[in-house]
Amino acid sequence: MSIALDVHLKIGGIIFPDMDQCDFTGPFEALARVPNSSFMTLWKDKNPVRDLAGMQLLADTTFEEAPQLDVLLVPGGHGQEALMHDETVLSFISNQAAGARYVFSVCTGALLCGAAGLLQGKHATTHWTAMEVLPLYGAIPGNERVVIDDRFISAGGVTAGIDGSLIVVSLLRGEKVAQELQLYMAYDPQPPFQSGSPEAAPADIVVTVTERARTITQRRLITGRAYQAALTKA
Amino acid sequence: MSIALDVHLKIGGIIFPDMDQCDFTGPFEALARVPNSSFMTLWKDKNPVRDLAGMQLLADTTFEEAPQLDVLLVPGGHGQEALMHDETVLSFISNQAAGARYVFSVCTGALLCGAAGLLQGKHATTHWTAMEVLPLYGAIPGNERVVIDDRFISAGGVTAGIDGSLIVVSLLRGEKVAQELQLYMAYDPQPPFQSGSPEAAPADIVVTVTERARTITQRRLITGRAYQAALTKA
Repeated sequence: MSIALDVHLKIGGIIFPDMDQCDFTGPFEALARVPNSSFMTLWKDKNPVRDLAGMQLLADTTFEEAPQLDVLLVPGGHGQEALMHDETVLSFISNQAAGARYVFSVCTGALLCGAAGLLQGKHATTHWTAMEVLPLYGAIPGNERVVIDDRFISAGGVTAGIDGSLIVVSLLRGEKVAQELQLYMAYDPQPPFQSGSPEAAPADIVVTVTERARTITQRRLITGRAYQAALTKA
Repeated sequence: MSIALDVHLKIGGIIFPDMDQCDFTGPFEALARVPNSSFMTLWKDKNPVRDLAGMQLLADTTFEEAPQLDVLLVPGGHGQEALMHDETVLSFISNQAAGARYVFSVCTGALLCGAAGLLQGKHATTHWTAMEVLPLYGAIPGNERVVIDDRFISAGGVTAGIDGSLIVVSLLRGEKVAQELQLYMAYDPQPPFQSGSPEAAPADIVVTVTERARTITQRRLITGRAYQAALTKA
């Protein structure tokens, strides 16, 4: 079911200001090592981009320079919200999606895909704090860590992108290649605490983190409702 | 046991050419979000640094500009080998280590700490392909995912840095803060395959990945034996 190894694969991932760098760098670790492939880091320009916590990343390919990709990685993070009406970004995503084998969103990158019109009728997931926003883009939200709906693959919050990327690798090059990369990455996770999901975390921790996300969640809901209203009107 | 919250913490992580970016970016996700702290990305200069797979990162602080840090993060990756005789890097690590509360190595960052003289008599871990190199720097190798020996904390290969970083956060600011960050990061890992360690992976996968690492492993052993020989002679 995977793609013949002699087919060179073009894989690209978007970076943007105030993204959550791990949404991108986690999947990069596996996706940039797919046999017979090239990986492009994409943004509007090649100036440094700062993630939400201040890490500086540089794109090596602009949207304009980008070829049709086989796989498009769309990460999330608070900065996603500022791009929800950015036609340059949204049309890049929708145009690439039309010809790509797979679109792979991580965290609230799913909302960008929603604003680009990719989620109508699709099963998808996102960061747990933003799950209620998904239906506003026509998506059917799933609480699984990684959701596969035909050519659209979505991973939950932040570190879920690592799990998702190994699934994407297996779709591209088969399970053996994914297993080799997993072993290279020593991905045998042993979280020191049991606090990785709202279901697993202590109740007071869930309250604190939900509260901390309240402002961005509200903004995401407002943007989503406006999108839905415009669609209904159209 | 954690540090009073009104004490501002300076946390820094080294980047370098041909590093494995995830050794750095995984821990960054948690360490850059420690309450009342600042995180500095460190290198000799502020020019773009390419990781082993081509991702471009930028330091915001040079070694010369860096204050005494509370925590020093030392990642690894193939490029570590080129720094094993680099006095600028090694003296930065050893000088910082003398005054830091914690030194935290990820993957073969442990070998850099070894070359900087930090590992004599210390329990430590590293990427599984490099475990046999550790004793050449006087370390007692441990196969645990994260090893704590007094002020020296080491994590195994690549993604082990995520587990290690949550432990470091808990040492700095207590378990509640680490749990909050784990929930924010949605760190509820669900690897799609069972191939994250040599013990778990299928035998043929272990052979392939070991073989792929043979050249760098041999170089690391040669460097380590030369270090040991020089120490014995001195």
